Amino acid sequence: MTDCIFCKIINKEIPADIVFEDENVLAFMDIKPVSKGHLLVIAKTHTADFLSAEDSVIASSMPMVKKIGQALMKTVNAQGMNITSNIGAASGQSVFHLHFHLIPRFDKDGLQSWPHQDSEPKTRTEIAERIKKELK
Amino acid sequence: MTDCIFCKIINKEIPADIVFEDENVLAFMDIKPVSKGHLLVIAKTHTADFLSAEDSVIASSMPMVKKIGQALMKTVNAQGMNITSNIGAASGQSVFHLHFHLIPRFDKDGLQSWPHQDSEPKTRTEIAERIKKELK
Repeated sequence: MTDCIFCKIINKEIPADIVFEDENVLAFMDIKPVSKGHLLVIAKTHTADFLSAEDSVIASSMPMVKKIGQALMKTVNAQGMNITSNIGAASGQSVFHLHFHLIPRFDKDGLQSWPHQDSEPKTRTEIAERIKKELK
Repeated sequence: MTDCIFCKIINKEIPADIVFEDENVLAFMDIKPVSKGHLLVIAKTHTADFLSAEDSVIASSMPMVKKIGQALMKTVNAQGMNITSNIGAASGQSVFHLHFHLIPRFDKDGLQSWPHQDSEPKTRTEIAERIKKELK
């Protein structure tokens, strides 16, 4: 897509610190990292996000997300990692081209998990029933 | 695994609000949700996390993560979603059995993205080179 910044990185119109490239994915360092080594793995096919992606695009991306994640863990001596894909502006997605954040984590790195709330069993069951119906 | 809480849910030894089940995955509501509708999709094969999972386990899970994510968005009228898999205690992982968090997001829901930092181009390039070597 002409006005997509990630398509421009794929087409080498915009420079990036690329760590891996094959026919399906491109991986490069996030220029505004959340932690040391934070990188993005993007699909070469332009598609807005994970939920609208063809299964074939997801299938060809995931093994490389894993392989690059393993190499990243080792390289920065991380103790953990969050692998995240955001869907929609409400989720914090800012570039609407399918990508996975690989965020290395370190003991006491100060990044806080979101607060979990207690939930009403009745509400939980009710939502579960509605999702079940939607999946039928 | 005998002492794994998610294996016990798979084996129906512990109850859960299950929304979907097939031969590869099980999906159920998080009892301590981060947002309305927060659910977990877990692989039926016991494996600690995404980075140590067999490619075949990932391949059979991802299409259902997508399908369940789409149904969840629709059911709770979400404006967005975060799909996350955590690796290691340092990342916030508390159950060491591969699972994906599907967290519906809503405009102004108050959940804050982690702060991004400026990064030194030299450091970025240096890390990228080391990951590249690790991947060779």
